[in-house]
Amino acid sequence: RIESPGEEERLLEGMTGFMAPPVSPLSTLLSAPRDMKTRMELLILGTQAEVCRALQEADGGAEFTVHRWQREEGGGGISCVLQDGNVFEKAGVNVSVVYGYLSEESIQQMKSRGKSLKTKDGKLPFCAMGVSSVIHPKNPHIPTIHFNYRYFEIEDTEGNKQWWFGGGTDLTPTYLNEEDAVHFHKTLKEACDKHGPELYFKFKKWCDEYFFIKHRGERRGLGGIFFDDLDSPSKEEVFEFVQSCAKAIVPCYIPIVEKHRNDSFTPEEKLWQQLRRGRYVEFNLVYDRGTKFGLATPGSRIESILMSLPLTARWEYMHIPPKNSKEAEILEVLRHPVDWVH
Amino acid sequence: RIESPGEEERLLEGMTGFMAPPVSPLSTLLSAPRDMKTRMELLILGTQAEVCRALQEADGGAEFTVHRWQREEGGGGISCVLQDGNVFEKAGVNVSVVYGYLSEESIQQMKSRGKSLKTKDGKLPFCAMGVSSVIHPKNPHIPTIHFNYRYFEIEDTEGNKQWWFGGGTDLTPTYLNEEDAVHFHKTLKEACDKHGPELYFKFKKWCDEYFFIKHRGERRGLGGIFFDDLDSPSKEEVFEFVQSCAKAIVPCYIPIVEKHRNDSFTPEEKLWQQLRRGRYVEFNLVYDRGTKFGLATPGSRIESILMSLPLTARWEYMHIPPKNSKEAEILEVLRHPVDWVH
Repeated sequence: RIESPGEEERLLEGMTGFMAPPVSPLSTLLSAPRDMKTRMELLILGTQAEVCRALQEADGGAEFTVHRWQREEGGGGISCVLQDGNVFEKAGVNVSVVYGYLSEESIQQMKSRGKSLKTKDGKLPFCAMGVSSVIHPKNPHIPTIHFNYRYFEIEDTEGNKQWWFGGGTDLTPTYLNEEDAVHFHKTLKEACDKHGPELYFKFKKWCDEYFFIKHRGERRGLGGIFFDDLDSPSKEEVFEFVQSCAKAIVPCYIPIVEKHRNDSFTPEEKLWQQLRRGRYVEFNLVYDRGTKFGLATPGSRIESILMSLPLTARWEYMHIPPKNSKEAEILEVLRHPVDWVH
Repeated sequence: RIESPGEEERLLEGMTGFMAPPVSPLSTLLSAPRDMKTRMELLILGTQAEVCRALQEADGGAEFTVHRWQREEGGGGISCVLQDGNVFEKAGVNVSVVYGYLSEESIQQMKSRGKSLKTKDGKLPFCAMGVSSVIHPKNPHIPTIHFNYRYFEIEDTEGNKQWWFGGGTDLTPTYLNEEDAVHFHKTLKEACDKHGPELYFKFKKWCDEYFFIKHRGERRGLGGIFFDDLDSPSKEEVFEFVQSCAKAIVPCYIPIVEKHRNDSFTPEEKLWQQLRRGRYVEFNLVYDRGTKFGLATPGSRIESILMSLPLTARWEYMHIPPKNSKEAEILEVLRHPVDWVH
């Protein structure tokens, strides 16, 4: 049931720029335009389109190929991938809207995070949706960026609904450029500050803790923000915060891409990039919660989940950069996170 | 206490070819020459030396660099790595002899495999030793080989000792060569047959089940043999079986290397090899029990554990080989394991 003709028009207009039609049937979206599931699906589709267009323009060569896929168990997604461009080696921006029942493994994992979940016959219906992206550029002076914004709803046997948002944006350079790090973190801070003065600092810390490659004693990159299980102060306010974060992606990243797109680089710098890509793979396959959730969810689309892996990566035995080298410099900040906004 | 002067002489003589002095102090080994820990340490060091020499000779260029390392918590290892040779891109043959207390994570993992372990204050002293190796050649017509033979001892609070052996040898080609697959499996079968007519078939099946990349629906390679928790019929008999398997490594593999070392290959074949290396990384980081045990064991040597990763690997989005191609041919047998000995 449409609340007013104006509402329907506004909804349809917002969709014109999307990379593909929404995952949910139009009738579902139109019948509940104010439901958070509808609003979040539109936000993630809009974010996907905005980021893809900005990347495509920055690349000036390759275009995104778009796959719209259905999930047998319920829902589906839209995967946009650009491979072998002028600037980007592999860029994926993925939307998924998944309905189904949580796997026993995922229930256990959520309980271990403190969720109280009442199941009946071990079954728990859920809806999970999000936009998720990893952008690996060719030039080792342009950093890799990752972002992910997601919304979760669970309904237990007594009909109680639980919901939460999660997400974040973080930067993984091959070499340290302090100016870039400051720009990235300050832009994120501005987005957070509108919603609370403590948010950036809280989620920056969480990010440094989350993207930790324990067996290496290193973080994956220079961090950014990360949050999960966010369900206060209110659904409306958390959504607005997530919206601000999503809008900050392009201004966080594209200026850095433009600044370095014509930087020259040596084969040695390319090699160090490849070794860092190896660490990226280690984090994603060994620790990343989203990857683990994806691999454990029956019927999930593996190609979309593993889109985050770089085109190429390298592992050398006992590669230790010399002291005072540029390679040692970045390792230092990966081992000891820095406050970039003061 | 040396049982006889002849025994000591024999022991010392056996050590002359090793890549480095044993991990355990000589006095420990000499004082208990018939203890299984001594015998197994000598077997794995001997296997390491035999395989390294055979690979070095086949490579005809690079030599193994040897690192002998100590583990603060007890024990240590000898890591032999050959990088960027004529034939081999990255070849690691690793021995470790580790004493300590099992981590809670490892205890849980072993219990889930059906071990009954009585702990006191959650602590469980153990000794684990093994030889472990992954050989990645440059030429895509020479397959990757992996082997691992290990011995475990646990002593619970009541002084009861549990022990078991584990191990296996398996082959991961980029392209299918049936003659190679038959040679490899028949050589393994001969080694197994001396100890029981059912062993090869049992451990071949186990291997196909173990090296399964669940999220891809593919096995990592063409299999071989794999076994774990082997503690019957007797310590002596299992040791002799493991010894036969270890002796079969060189005859399993080196003839295949020699046969293909001068095969020409195209850039497309090299590319397919890189994609298969990506799958190798996926298995090792997501599923491999040894890697997980290593990453979860405090003070373990990460460089030795992750030595198994290839020098380079590649992930392409939605790479699907054309029907009836050589690439599709190998995927077919990775999806549906073949009986190679009949």
